[in-house]
Amino acid sequence: MTQPLRVAVIGLGRWANVIAAAARRSSELELVSCFSRREEARAAFAAAHGCAAASSLQEVLDQPGIDALLVTVPNHAHAEVIEQAARAGKHVFVEKPLAASLEDGLRILEAVRSSGIKLMVGHSARMLAGSRRVRRLIQSGELGEVSLVEANFSNDRALELTPDRWRADPDRNPGGPLLQLAVHQFDLIRAWLGPVEAVSAQVGRLHSRVGVPDVATCLLRLASGPFAYVGSSWSSSAAYWARVYGSRANAHLEVDFRYWNRGEEVDAHSRLWVEPNDGDPYPVELEPADMYRDELEELARSVREDRVPEVSVEVGLANLAVVHAALRSAASGREVTVAEVLPEGVGA
Amino acid sequence: MTQPLRVAVIGLGRWANVIAAAARRSSELELVSCFSRREEARAAFAAAHGCAAASSLQEVLDQPGIDALLVTVPNHAHAEVIEQAARAGKHVFVEKPLAASLEDGLRILEAVRSSGIKLMVGHSARMLAGSRRVRRLIQSGELGEVSLVEANFSNDRALELTPDRWRADPDRNPGGPLLQLAVHQFDLIRAWLGPVEAVSAQVGRLHSRVGVPDVATCLLRLASGPFAYVGSSWSSSAAYWARVYGSRANAHLEVDFRYWNRGEEVDAHSRLWVEPNDGDPYPVELEPADMYRDELEELARSVREDRVPEVSVEVGLANLAVVHAALRSAASGREVTVAEVLPEGVGA
Repeated sequence: MTQPLRVAVIGLGRWANVIAAAARRSSELELVSCFSRREEARAAFAAAHGCAAASSLQEVLDQPGIDALLVTVPNHAHAEVIEQAARAGKHVFVEKPLAASLEDGLRILEAVRSSGIKLMVGHSARMLAGSRRVRRLIQSGELGEVSLVEANFSNDRALELTPDRWRADPDRNPGGPLLQLAVHQFDLIRAWLGPVEAVSAQVGRLHSRVGVPDVATCLLRLASGPFAYVGSSWSSSAAYWARVYGSRANAHLEVDFRYWNRGEEVDAHSRLWVEPNDGDPYPVELEPADMYRDELEELARSVREDRVPEVSVEVGLANLAVVHAALRSAASGREVTVAEVLPEGVGA
Repeated sequence: MTQPLRVAVIGLGRWANVIAAAARRSSELELVSCFSRREEARAAFAAAHGCAAASSLQEVLDQPGIDALLVTVPNHAHAEVIEQAARAGKHVFVEKPLAASLEDGLRILEAVRSSGIKLMVGHSARMLAGSRRVRRLIQSGELGEVSLVEANFSNDRALELTPDRWRADPDRNPGGPLLQLAVHQFDLIRAWLGPVEAVSAQVGRLHSRVGVPDVATCLLRLASGPFAYVGSSWSSSAAYWARVYGSRANAHLEVDFRYWNRGEEVDAHSRLWVEPNDGDPYPVELEPADMYRDELEELARSVREDRVPEVSVEVGLANLAVVHAALRSAASGREVTVAEVLPEGVGA
């Protein structure tokens, strides 16, 4: 039996509990410690998850018995924590998006490259059982030649935002649902069909009472050829679906968003069906996975095997670049290439 | 009992049989005659549908016992037939799209306005039982505030096109599936949420072996606020669906394309379900309509009641203008307004 990856959770908001529970479902990780600036939060988290509570980030960084940080601080605080982790030689799992700004994303890229740490970005959507299965349908040729893929991820988060929350602030959360939800689908489409080259987008605020946008629509130009669309509303009933159009069959994936926080249950509440060109639609049975556990295990394995994790810093940065290309497109009314928003030589 | 509208079908391709059968299902229309340049075609059609066969279009136009023409000639031939109908004082039902080119669309507008005939465009999709029901869901407020609508209409027509067919020719069929399929969804979104102001689009040819495009994606800017997307592949398994995202609930409509040609059956093979913000999804029962019969009856009633039919020449022209704005957007990589492609003072 290999030694588990010993981890500490940094940033103890709502999502930290989802990630900690996932770590505890895996024998490949051991939850050792946690840290938040709020003392009560770390005491409660330590009690809930049976781990130690550090009194400073430095204490975690100095501890030789910790291999990696699970970073669940707000997006605009990712870069600073990851730079410190990299200097201390700690590996990193970081929630998606990689960062809020491209500048922060580039800082993280530099920190990872110069330190040699492993960094895995939490683009969990590609790890849904249904997503993996669709990828196999595409790669096996069962769908024939793919011409189009569409995806949407929406919920009503903007309707409950108050001005004091970082998610309500367009500076700290540029693009709103584009950065929080659509970025999952950018990664999903990348996992299925490869890199995005350019984006045409519309981004706006319709019904939220705070400054952040609450709806975004994007047309993606993929290097591999197929056309792609991603939509996201932050002011509607929840939706998570994706559809692939192929010359032999279409595939449609629907996920019940009410189970989104429960990686160990969500696959049992997902439906995948195939609509062949020459017959009746049929459902495809999904073998349940556990997206949050699986993404953490991918970090553990990349450390053990000394290889780049599946969702590398480069992939996370490329997905973030699509968000910023979309914002620039929406502001200018023209198609924007991903290369335009990234410095030369950077890109995945 | 009112006198039925006495009609003649002009242009006897595959679709003429669908329209003739629909006319025969209604007591408000009487199929009197037909015309095609191909003598065998008109003899066969007359025998199949129990009507006379005219030996020229002029013969139909001269016949006082004919009130209206059902125009099912290819799109690029609509304008010439409709101009002759208008001069002869015959009302017109014309298959969607109104025309292939905007120039032809404007000629038809002028012909209708100067003659005072009634013209109904066959944007049947808005007449699906599911479409009507979604419209009521929006207007009643059951979905809450709408932020986004998405629709797709796809099939594999491009994969079977040969170079000798007019549908394979980008001059006679500009935009391919954009003009043939997506135009239905432009009209559907107009029926639900009002006029389109601008379009960002991507249009391309991926898998067809003829020159016409076979995939198109469009972001629409609506005057009423909500964001909108329409996608269409002409190289994939068939799909017809639309989804509306509201603050209280989302609504999803799926139509089984295999029943598309059978207006009297398609509603029984459609599914509409609602996903509320605060509970389980539930299906909405649809009261079957008959979209092809209903669009013809709308022409008959507009004549009887001396009023503009629901899908007027102005609406048909506006939908065609969205197609051409999308083509211009795809060619230029920027958002294009519908006003840009139409002469000043024209628009719906």
